Amino acid sequence: MNQLITAIKSLITLTREEESVVNGLFKPLELKSGNYFVEEGELCRYVGFIESGLVRYHMNDDGNQKTLYFSREGEFVCNYQSFLPKVPSNTSIQAIEDTRMQVITYDNLQRLYKTVREGEKLGRLAIEGVFLSSLQQLKSFYRDSPAERYQQFLSAYPELAQRIPQYHIASYVGIKPQSLSRIRKKLVAGK
Amino acid sequence: MNQLITAIKSLITLTREEESVVNGLFKPLELKSGNYFVEEGELCRYVGFIESGLVRYHMNDDGNQKTLYFSREGEFVCNYQSFLPKVPSNTSIQAIEDTRMQVITYDNLQRLYKTVREGEKLGRLAIEGVFLSSLQQLKSFYRDSPAERYQQFLSAYPELAQRIPQYHIASYVGIKPQSLSRIRKKLVAGK
Repeated sequence: MNQLITAIKSLITLTREEESVVNGLFKPLELKSGNYFVEEGELCRYVGFIESGLVRYHMNDDGNQKTLYFSREGEFVCNYQSFLPKVPSNTSIQAIEDTRMQVITYDNLQRLYKTVREGEKLGRLAIEGVFLSSLQQLKSFYRDSPAERYQQFLSAYPELAQRIPQYHIASYVGIKPQSLSRIRKKLVAGK
Repeated sequence: MNQLITAIKSLITLTREEESVVNGLFKPLELKSGNYFVEEGELCRYVGFIESGLVRYHMNDDGNQKTLYFSREGEFVCNYQSFLPKVPSNTSIQAIEDTRMQVITYDNLQRLYKTVREGEKLGRLAIEGVFLSSLQQLKSFYRDSPAERYQQFLSAYPELAQRIPQYHIASYVGIKPQSLSRIRKKLVAGK
């Protein structure tokens, strides 16, 4: 059983036939490190499931590029604010490692909802999860201090600190790389 | 046919029998003006459908009470960030007119998803709508200027400007009532 089917089966039950239907509605997409899944101003055409690799969500905030979050293997990736109402994306999603995905278009996702017995339930559960984490991320982005965001980063992505360049982590935290070094030193000294 | 059923039938189809099931899963709730649907720190126990009246969402932001938005007759009301994961609400929802609702508990909503043929689809569509509007509201709350927020208020709630006290509108816009008067004068002068 492939990773995509395993992820879906953690939310709903699928028959063998439905597994084939789902596999037929997704198609593979490979992104080299640096390539974009969607760029700001474009329509986000797919929901992707990451089989291997890592992507970074970023947006312009008063002229500065801010990193909003990261998604890695085993996670779904999409800017639903563009994908659902079919309007241009205000966020870019960029591979920061060579990344292999399975992607599904809007129309095929509607087919999945209709043809898979528990398809609508999958849609509801997936969007509930995305809804809660997006609100949390956005609130943190505007309200939390850099030190708080760095500690949240370490607990949310403990094993990613090694895979993500320091300047991307600094951009996620909302500070310059030099300031991140200072926070890290303080954290080490405080332990 | 009651308003709740009409609202649900704008999203999915319901048989006569399912209409009875839905009506049986909701119960009426009346709030006097000033009463709370949920208070900050409490669990949000219901999704409500407003039959008549008006509510205001507000939260503390660094010690100041900020108005996030309003919901009126014909709309659903809930703090999903509390209701879905069953954690205390970070937002209060307060009636600002005498308000009549139909409300459903978490457990009854799960029953609705299971027993109504298109129940899961209703859940998916409803949460998609809430997801998009919540993100938009939250971004506007942190990023837009008071003048922008006032104009958005007028276009989002044109007929509510008469029903909502000026100090609540000022709190939604993010300024003192006196400053709102100045913005209104400028808008009138600029027309």
